[in-house]
Amino acid sequence: MTLNIEATEEAMRTDTRAFAAHPRASFDPAARAAAATDRSGYEPPTLPDAVVHAESVDDVVQALELAHAHQLPVVPRGAGTGLAGGASAEAGEVVLDVSRMNRILSIDPVEMVAVVEPGVLNAEVNAAAAEFGLFYAPDPASTAICSIGGNIATNAGGMWCAKYGVTRESVLGLRVVLADGRILRTGRSTIKGVTGYDLNALFIGSEGTLGVVVEATLRLRPRPVRTETLAAYFPDVEAAGRAASAITAARIQPSILELMDGPTLDAVDRAEGTGHRALGGAFLLAQTDGYGAHLELDAIAEAIGPYASSLHRAADAAEAEALVKARRDAIPSLEKLGRVSIGDIAVPRNRLAEAFAGLEEIAARTGTRIFSVAHAADGNLHPMIVVDPAESITSGPAKAALGDMFHLARRLGGTLTGEHGVGVLKREWVGEELGETSRTLQQAIKGALDPAGTLNPGKAI
Amino acid sequence: MTLNIEATEEAMRTDTRAFAAHPRASFDPAARAAAATDRSGYEPPTLPDAVVHAESVDDVVQALELAHAHQLPVVPRGAGTGLAGGASAEAGEVVLDVSRMNRILSIDPVEMVAVVEPGVLNAEVNAAAAEFGLFYAPDPASTAICSIGGNIATNAGGMWCAKYGVTRESVLGLRVVLADGRILRTGRSTIKGVTGYDLNALFIGSEGTLGVVVEATLRLRPRPVRTETLAAYFPDVEAAGRAASAITAARIQPSILELMDGPTLDAVDRAEGTGHRALGGAFLLAQTDGYGAHLELDAIAEAIGPYASSLHRAADAAEAEALVKARRDAIPSLEKLGRVSIGDIAVPRNRLAEAFAGLEEIAARTGTRIFSVAHAADGNLHPMIVVDPAESITSGPAKAALGDMFHLARRLGGTLTGEHGVGVLKREWVGEELGETSRTLQQAIKGALDPAGTLNPGKAI
Repeated sequence: MTLNIEATEEAMRTDTRAFAAHPRASFDPAARAAAATDRSGYEPPTLPDAVVHAESVDDVVQALELAHAHQLPVVPRGAGTGLAGGASAEAGEVVLDVSRMNRILSIDPVEMVAVVEPGVLNAEVNAAAAEFGLFYAPDPASTAICSIGGNIATNAGGMWCAKYGVTRESVLGLRVVLADGRILRTGRSTIKGVTGYDLNALFIGSEGTLGVVVEATLRLRPRPVRTETLAAYFPDVEAAGRAASAITAARIQPSILELMDGPTLDAVDRAEGTGHRALGGAFLLAQTDGYGAHLELDAIAEAIGPYASSLHRAADAAEAEALVKARRDAIPSLEKLGRVSIGDIAVPRNRLAEAFAGLEEIAARTGTRIFSVAHAADGNLHPMIVVDPAESITSGPAKAALGDMFHLARRLGGTLTGEHGVGVLKREWVGEELGETSRTLQQAIKGALDPAGTLNPGKAI
Repeated sequence: MTLNIEATEEAMRTDTRAFAAHPRASFDPAARAAAATDRSGYEPPTLPDAVVHAESVDDVVQALELAHAHQLPVVPRGAGTGLAGGASAEAGEVVLDVSRMNRILSIDPVEMVAVVEPGVLNAEVNAAAAEFGLFYAPDPASTAICSIGGNIATNAGGMWCAKYGVTRESVLGLRVVLADGRILRTGRSTIKGVTGYDLNALFIGSEGTLGVVVEATLRLRPRPVRTETLAAYFPDVEAAGRAASAITAARIQPSILELMDGPTLDAVDRAEGTGHRALGGAFLLAQTDGYGAHLELDAIAEAIGPYASSLHRAADAAEAEALVKARRDAIPSLEKLGRVSIGDIAVPRNRLAEAFAGLEEIAARTGTRIFSVAHAADGNLHPMIVVDPAESITSGPAKAALGDMFHLARRLGGTLTGEHGVGVLKREWVGEELGETSRTLQQAIKGALDPAGTLNPGKAI
C-alpha cells in the first residue's frame, strides 16, 4: 500500500504530540505507515499521528492515561492480520501496538492452562503447548502470523472450532487496561465460575473498543490420542455443501470439516503445484479425533459417499498434514491472483448448498470473481472476492458483492460475520443485523466502559 | 417455610397496587408466600406485595412497563429451584413468575436447535430432543424440576458440562424483555457469529438483574452413539480427589466425572436402600461417550486404578442409570437429614484433594456437618452443610462455614460460585472476589441496562 505521507503530516492534530512524553512513542512516518492498516485491503485516507510500541503493561497504562488526559483516540493493534479493518488508523489517531508484548508467561501442564501476553502468535502458543501433549483449539488459517490479542479482539475461530468452540470457549480470563488506564481482571483460572456478569465474554470480540488486553489465561486441551483424515471430491460445490449437511444430519462431530470450491482448488494447484482440481469440482476435508476417530471417520465416509465422486483416506500424518495445508494455502494462493476481499458470512448448517448457489448468483450479478471456502461444520463461509490489483475492494463491484453477501446470509437466517469481526468494512450493515434496541444497548455499554469514546472509535458497533 | 402473613400485609407499599391493572397479577397471600423464596433455605423477612403469573410475552412486557412507570422493583422467577436466594422477594417487591410460559416452540432436528419459552423444564427439553436422537447438554441435578429460564439466569452447569460446557455454551440466542418493556434479541441462530458485543453471554448468568428472558434458542447435540460407565470406590475422599486429578493429568475427557464422599454415600444408602458406603469411603462415577467410549473408559480405569479400592463397570444402560441416579439422589437424601445449605465453590482441577482436606478442617472448626459431592472434571465442589431443622442456615455456624468455604476456594485459586449464582446468600463475598474495578464496571453496565434499578435489586452484584 502506498500512502501520501506528506499530505497527512499536515493533518496531524497538535494534541497527539502529547505522546512525545511516552518513551515508546514513534512519530516516524515509516512506523506510522506500517501501523496504518491490516490485511483487509482497507486503505485509510491518511496516516495515524503516532505509534506506541508497548513492551510492558506499564507502557499500555501510560499510553491510555495520556489518551485519557488529552481525549485522544487510540487504535489497539496486534499482529495486524485482521480482515475487516479493525486495526486501521488515520490522522488524529494514535496506534497502540502490543506486538512486542509477546511472551508466554507460564504453562501449567497439569491444569492445562497457559498465561500469555497479547502479542504472542497463535502458532507459538500451540508449539509451546505441544511440548506437554496439549493444544490451543482456536486456529485461524493465519495461525503462523496472527496474535492472541487479535484473536481475542475478533473472537477468532478456525478449523478446529467445529468441535472445540471459538476463542470465547478457550479464554478463561483476561487482564485488560481500560480507557482511563485502570487495570481490570475478567474471568478466572477455574473452568467454571459465575460470580458477577460475564465481562470476559464481553471483551472477547469487542475489537479493541472496550479496553486493551495485556494478558490472557488460555484453556489448553489434550492433544487427541488418535486423528483420522479424509479428503473427498465432488462434482460441484452444491454437492459438497449437501454432503457437509449430511454429516451434521447423521449426528457426527468431526474435529475439522473444511470445504473448498473448484476455482479455489484451481488457484491452490497453480500456486502450490498440487493436483486437486483434476479430482473434482469441490473438495471436503474431514478430520475426526479421539479414541474412536477411525470409527467416526467410517461414519463420515458412509454419510457423504452418495454425494462424492471420490474419497481418499490419509494413510499417515504427513498425508493428512498435506491435506490440511491445502486448505491453509487457499488465501495466500488467491492473493497471487489479485486483491482479495474476504467475506465471512455464517448460515445455518443445513443451508450451505443454498449459500453456494446464492454466491454464484452474486458473482454473476456484480461481475466479480468469487472463490469460496467454508468451515462447513459450523456454517461459516469465506467467499473471497478477487479483483484486479488496480481496482478497489472497498467500492464498486467488490463492495456491491460484499453487501449482497450480507443480505444472502440474512435471507438464509445467518449473520454478517462469523469470526473476522466488523471493523470498518462491515459497519454499515451492523445496524440492520442487530436492530435498534440492541445497537442502542451496545452503545450504552460502550459508554459505560469508555465514556469519552477514545478506544478504537468508529469500529465494530 | 412459614411466614407471618398478617405482619407483612402492613408493609405493602401503596404503589405496588398499580399492578391491579395487570390481568395476571395476584395479591393473594398464599400466591405471594409461594413465590417468596427458592430452594436455598433463605427466608425473606416479609412477603412480596404481588405476583404476576405471566402466560405470554405481552404479559411480561405489561408487567415491566408497569414497574418502569411506577419505579417498582420486580423479581423474575422461574421454577423457584434456585440455591442462592436469587428469586427471593420481600415487601415492596413484585414477583414476575414466568413458569406458565412453558412451551417448546420448535425443534429443528437437522439444524439441532430448539426454541423454547423460559418456563419449560430442563428435563422436558431433553425428553423432546431425545425423540430426534438429540440432547441438551446442561443438566443440573435438579433437571426434573428446574426451568430453562432459571438455568440461563444462573448459567447452570451439571454433570455433562465436563465435556459439553455449561449453559452459556448451549444457548445460541435469547429474546429478552428489558426493564422498560422494550424487547431485545441477543445472539443468533447460527453456531458462529461475532457481530457486535456478546450481549447473549452478558444476560446468561445475570440472575434476572438485566432483563427477563422470554424465549431461548438452544443448541442441541447428537446423543452419543456409545456410552460407557464406571463406578470406582476409594478408601477416602482425598484419594478420590487425587484419582479425579489423575484423569485430567492423563489427558482424558470424560463426559461425566462425579465424586461423592463417604457421609454422602451413607445418606444416599439410607434414603434409597442402596449399598455404596460398604464398598468404600468415597465414590467416583465416570462416564465416557462417543465412538471410542469403551477405549476411553479403559484409559480412565488405568489412570485411577492405583488409587481405587474397587472398580465396577456398568454392564448395561440400566446399571449405568442406577449409578447416575445415586449421584442425583445426593441432595434429596441429605434434605432428609436436616436443613441443607449447598455450597458451590470451584477450584483448579488439580487441587480437589486439598479442597476436600480444607472442608474437613472447616467442619471441625465451625462444628458443622459437611457432606461433599463434586463435578470433579471441572473442579466444581458442592459441600453441603446440614443443620438441625430448627437451626438457621443463613446465620451462626452454617454461615461461618459458608464464608470459610469461600476463603478456602480463593486460597486455592478458585471462585465463590461455580454454577449456582450469587443470589442474596453470597453477596457479601462478591466484592472481595471481583475487586473494586470489576465491581464498578459491573454496576455501570447494570446502570446502562436498568437505569432505575428495578430488576431484581440487591441480587448478584
